[in-house]
Amino acid sequence: MIVLQAKPLSALLPVRSAAMEAAAAAASPLSALFFCSPFSHLRSAPGFRLLALSLPLADGLRAPSGTALLLPSRRFCVSARSSGDQIVARPSSEMRKNPFGGCDRGAGDEKLRALRELFSRPDVGIDAYIIPSQDAHQSEFIAECFMRRAYISGFTGSAGTAVVTKENAALWTDGRYFLQAEKQLSRDWILMRSGNHGVPTTSEWLNDVLAPGCRIGIDPFLFSSNAAEELKDEISKKDHELVFLYDFNLIDEIWGESRPKPPINPTRVHDIKYAGVDVSSKLFSLRSELIEAGGSAIIISMLDEVAWLLNMRGNDVPNSPVFYSYLLVEMKRVKLFIDNTKITMEVKDHLTNAGVELRPYEGILPEIERLAASGAKLWLDPSSVNAAIVSIFKSACDKHNRKTRKGENKEVVASIKNQDIQAEGPFGLYKVSPVTMAKAVKNRAEIEGMHNSHIRDAAALAEFWAWLEEEISKNIAYTEVEVADKLLEFRKKQPGFLDTSFDTISGYGANGAIIHYNPNSESCSVVGDKNLFLLDSGGQYVDGTTDITRTVHFGEPSLRQKECFTRVLQGHIAIDQAIFPEGTPGFVLDILARSPLWKIGLDYRHGTGHGVGAALNVHEGPQSISFRYGNMTALQKGMIVSNEPGYYEDNSFGIRIENLLIVKDVELPNYYGGIGYLGFEKLTFVPIQNKLVDLSLLSHAEINWLNDYHAQVWEKVSPMLDGGAREWLWNNTRPLPQD
Amino acid sequence: MIVLQAKPLSALLPVRSAAMEAAAAAASPLSALFFCSPFSHLRSAPGFRLLALSLPLADGLRAPSGTALLLPSRRFCVSARSSGDQIVARPSSEMRKNPFGGCDRGAGDEKLRALRELFSRPDVGIDAYIIPSQDAHQSEFIAECFMRRAYISGFTGSAGTAVVTKENAALWTDGRYFLQAEKQLSRDWILMRSGNHGVPTTSEWLNDVLAPGCRIGIDPFLFSSNAAEELKDEISKKDHELVFLYDFNLIDEIWGESRPKPPINPTRVHDIKYAGVDVSSKLFSLRSELIEAGGSAIIISMLDEVAWLLNMRGNDVPNSPVFYSYLLVEMKRVKLFIDNTKITMEVKDHLTNAGVELRPYEGILPEIERLAASGAKLWLDPSSVNAAIVSIFKSACDKHNRKTRKGENKEVVASIKNQDIQAEGPFGLYKVSPVTMAKAVKNRAEIEGMHNSHIRDAAALAEFWAWLEEEISKNIAYTEVEVADKLLEFRKKQPGFLDTSFDTISGYGANGAIIHYNPNSESCSVVGDKNLFLLDSGGQYVDGTTDITRTVHFGEPSLRQKECFTRVLQGHIAIDQAIFPEGTPGFVLDILARSPLWKIGLDYRHGTGHGVGAALNVHEGPQSISFRYGNMTALQKGMIVSNEPGYYEDNSFGIRIENLLIVKDVELPNYYGGIGYLGFEKLTFVPIQNKLVDLSLLSHAEINWLNDYHAQVWEKVSPMLDGGAREWLWNNTRPLPQD
Repeated sequence: MIVLQAKPLSALLPVRSAAMEAAAAAASPLSALFFCSPFSHLRSAPGFRLLALSLPLADGLRAPSGTALLLPSRRFCVSARSSGDQIVARPSSEMRKNPFGGCDRGAGDEKLRALRELFSRPDVGIDAYIIPSQDAHQSEFIAECFMRRAYISGFTGSAGTAVVTKENAALWTDGRYFLQAEKQLSRDWILMRSGNHGVPTTSEWLNDVLAPGCRIGIDPFLFSSNAAEELKDEISKKDHELVFLYDFNLIDEIWGESRPKPPINPTRVHDIKYAGVDVSSKLFSLRSELIEAGGSAIIISMLDEVAWLLNMRGNDVPNSPVFYSYLLVEMKRVKLFIDNTKITMEVKDHLTNAGVELRPYEGILPEIERLAASGAKLWLDPSSVNAAIVSIFKSACDKHNRKTRKGENKEVVASIKNQDIQAEGPFGLYKVSPVTMAKAVKNRAEIEGMHNSHIRDAAALAEFWAWLEEEISKNIAYTEVEVADKLLEFRKKQPGFLDTSFDTISGYGANGAIIHYNPNSESCSVVGDKNLFLLDSGGQYVDGTTDITRTVHFGEPSLRQKECFTRVLQGHIAIDQAIFPEGTPGFVLDILARSPLWKIGLDYRHGTGHGVGAALNVHEGPQSISFRYGNMTALQKGMIVSNEPGYYEDNSFGIRIENLLIVKDVELPNYYGGIGYLGFEKLTFVPIQNKLVDLSLLSHAEINWLNDYHAQVWEKVSPMLDGGAREWLWNNTRPLPQD
Repeated sequence: MIVLQAKPLSALLPVRSAAMEAAAAAASPLSALFFCSPFSHLRSAPGFRLLALSLPLADGLRAPSGTALLLPSRRFCVSARSSGDQIVARPSSEMRKNPFGGCDRGAGDEKLRALRELFSRPDVGIDAYIIPSQDAHQSEFIAECFMRRAYISGFTGSAGTAVVTKENAALWTDGRYFLQAEKQLSRDWILMRSGNHGVPTTSEWLNDVLAPGCRIGIDPFLFSSNAAEELKDEISKKDHELVFLYDFNLIDEIWGESRPKPPINPTRVHDIKYAGVDVSSKLFSLRSELIEAGGSAIIISMLDEVAWLLNMRGNDVPNSPVFYSYLLVEMKRVKLFIDNTKITMEVKDHLTNAGVELRPYEGILPEIERLAASGAKLWLDPSSVNAAIVSIFKSACDKHNRKTRKGENKEVVASIKNQDIQAEGPFGLYKVSPVTMAKAVKNRAEIEGMHNSHIRDAAALAEFWAWLEEEISKNIAYTEVEVADKLLEFRKKQPGFLDTSFDTISGYGANGAIIHYNPNSESCSVVGDKNLFLLDSGGQYVDGTTDITRTVHFGEPSLRQKECFTRVLQGHIAIDQAIFPEGTPGFVLDILARSPLWKIGLDYRHGTGHGVGAALNVHEGPQSISFRYGNMTALQKGMIVSNEPGYYEDNSFGIRIENLLIVKDVELPNYYGGIGYLGFEKLTFVPIQNKLVDLSLLSHAEINWLNDYHAQVWEKVSPMLDGGAREWLWNNTRPLPQD
């Protein structure tokens, strides 16, 4: 195996010299050099071209001048058959950080050093440790005390996995965060760009860098059972063992005293006028499904599922009104595992009325063992319930069933019989939580709450945009963070506002190209009138959850920007107007959003739509609209999805246009196949900047869509506004001319 | 279980009387009647509505008048929990055939009686027999002697499976053939509409109608290994055993003397100027893949793969230039298993040059046993190689490996060693044939041949359409069959024409709604000027294969027909103009074709595109464009696909517009992601009838597409024409007005 080093990406050297240097750096003769290009942002560098194939060294280098040598990833292995050697390219992040020399990883990082020291402690004894982003509930937004991956790596994006071996430290994240991770990771870290061609998965990489037979540690609370099983299978290919460290989290150990305390914020009752269905009815439906599945109990571990099922809300994490807890529903009892200090008197009454008992949060593992011992048929969603719970339950079942088979411990069996539970022994039902779908399909009250909160949110946004346009016209400088803070002020004025629904993405110019940009008050840009400004934000209201992106230009957009914006808008309109038969999975629609961009060779590296909770998580399943074709969940009447195509020109600008939509039945002149057809109804009513539209690209129907939309925005939102904001709304909802 | 009988579909009785009669016919009291509507063609019957849900009988029937009672399928089971009974509806085909009485299946059918008598013969001993459409090579078009399913059932469509038990006979076919099968099946047969909601698969049905533990017989040559394994797994759920009857086919036994003889038509060499790559190069590539996969030999069983690999063509089946044979490629030898009488001197020389040896067709099973005995690592594509071959190979491997392990038969092992084959024992490599992809991606010569043959085919079609339009304007009556025959005459005049590439679908009016309609000269319609005429046809030429559908109206189309045609055309244009990144599977594009129809609640029950061979099978894999989302094969440069959206209004008219397309690289201003983008290039150049276009539905871009296309048709095809045909082409390629 020859590991090549290459020029930094920024150098853009001609291929000949770059290849020669790479060849010189290699330890043995090369028969060929391999070039490929997962680095699309370089496409836009002027005069720069990438080659997708190999160049034979023997024949000399025949690449066009201006071609750069790129050796993208460890996994981009190509057999150079003529020589029998194998050439392995290194990740580009390493090239950038460490242009010409050898490896000097890990030396400078105190946290990594401390972590690696723990590896050899007798009660640890591991060769690598995997630090995911998750808390014990697979939450997207987590309390600060659980932000272990950010603590160890310095990368603060919402998605990512850190893996630390005795020699290496690598961080995986997806296309939304490539630029952010490049900025935040120290040189001790290798950035792994998930989804790029040839980038290995964490387990592939571990199998690659570790000698066979290593012990790889995880905190089993932080992995879903499925994720842990998959990891175990993958690493077993190299005879590695997955070690569950139940009793301590290694990051917490090195974090020590400075680690924040777990949250103990009070919970509240989610009013029935917003929830629509009372807890008893929800529990009745859940138990019906449980009976149907042959179960006697179910563990609900997703925080939004607990909140939805109990018509409760909390305040433990940013952006989502949830509270740390587990819920156990048995046929006759319901137990909520939660820190008691979070329970107000109102909540206590509410829970008592619904027959819900309280248990300490930490009581969950002993309860799981008790369930197994009592012969429970326990429904566990292995995609959300953590590996600690599932693993403990399985062990307890094995123990119990072994005892029963051996004829030992007959008293236990007898006592189970007395409890009127079938004595065949406990088992697990590993299926998707039935709450996931029940929660996704909104009832009438939830839809009404979503409508109402979106109109108030739209009023706040109209006030905000009117304010910002005015300030910028007066040449007053606001940073991205100040702008986001001001938006929060406007939202706070709206009745029922509680919190943002995610960290506001306020990205001016090149920052807009960082898909999940999180501006930092020290280093962020000033919002001006020379480039596009992308603003993706949302609010948590007592009755609903919003998520909206608008992209605007306060000066003169370039033709390029107008073309890209218009194509993103065309994709947005195509999704909005889609009509499709019942049973259609969301991914089928995805191409509608991308087609206008594909026509000129553009695309975007994120899904087109995600589910949204009603006064709950801003991202929820099971539905999605994505270019990942695996999610077969059909879109159903009452589901909410975002519609957010985009385009990102790295180091230049970003565009995204996002509304939320409700899936609805549509009335049509025909119903071929005797089935219903579905379409979308908009929830979001905020102007889309006409200035950015290239009218020559739009069809009549598309122009009509935009004009109709703006007429609706005016009609619905203007009654909430006065003064400058009303004037702004009037000006920004005028119809575009139809030729 | 209560089996309900209902009124014939054609009666369209009010629900009350129909339901009362059904209730009266039922053997025990009913608590509810269930209505549902997979019969979309009834949607279009005036004044007719279907209910999707249940009507409680106890409360009286509250359905609107004009509603018909429909009890669609055996599988449409609904638990009527209040009474504890289960109501099972019967397939509509039974209702139609057998309106009011009890079951009287099987009594009148002599063939079924004869077949069932064989079941109990000592060397047979089965309870059911499955008769698929296939020959031993999974061919779509098969020699007459292999048309066993058509012989036993009377249903002559290309796709279908017959299953005969001692008591029942059922035939499965898909949406293309529902109407045809209804016409052709006798009352002894149950029609199973595959793909309709609630219709069981063959194995589900067998598990349902047979008592557990039955023996279900098949001819193992007629099932792919995968299909047989799947069947075995499915029926094992009810403890049924799958019995391979190697030595005789039961249908052949009852067919007896009247069964046609297997074909012995001469083969020919496919000229290198059309093939593009010589046999030695193809074998070299194949052997490279074989080595890579760790194999020492490969069986090629698909007839088009053998023909493609050997640059040979034959004439054994209608529509495809293939010849019955198997090919065995070892590292140093190639053996073609074929009836020697098919080998001309020219072919003999060609094969000798390529080092191909000849073996009798029947020699394949002994050869398979020899391969196992010699320790071969044999690549078998289980999706195409039949269960007889795979099963024999597996048994032979087991036998050999068992012997070797036991230390017996050392001479055999020694002799194998002498043959310089690794002595570890034989095994099977079960993977998709590497020839499938090699054949799908056309080389330059193949593409040129396809282009050239399409232009000649277009000339023949222009002459044909000019002739037909003229005859109809003179009120001369031609039947659908006569019209198809005339088209064949025009094609025959073109140089290099060999055969049709499939049975011409010539459907006037309501017949056009039968997706794979095969007109019968005794009963078919006269083509007139009162309705749409759909013509789907293709030619086999020495240099290429064509497949084209046009739909025309010789009089005044209705507004409905124009709207439907225009929406089909919009879907056709959307596919034609699609641009998509490399790596995109065909199914992703499918929605582009359906969207314009979905907008008004219409759809079509077939895929949008299939692969097409170059002077080979008109249907080939692995790519497709389909609403079935399972085929992950990415479209690749050089692949050919059809573009054929349609719409079928049962009992009224059918519309389909089909061109063939080549996947090509497209030049774009951007290459986001650093990857290539693909699009399509048209092969087919025949006018689309402007008269049927509702201009008000089309965008400027769509009108431009049609005008551009017609300009290209004129440019490419007019030089081949003179007289009336040239005039017709001129008239039919004039641009539509752009407002």
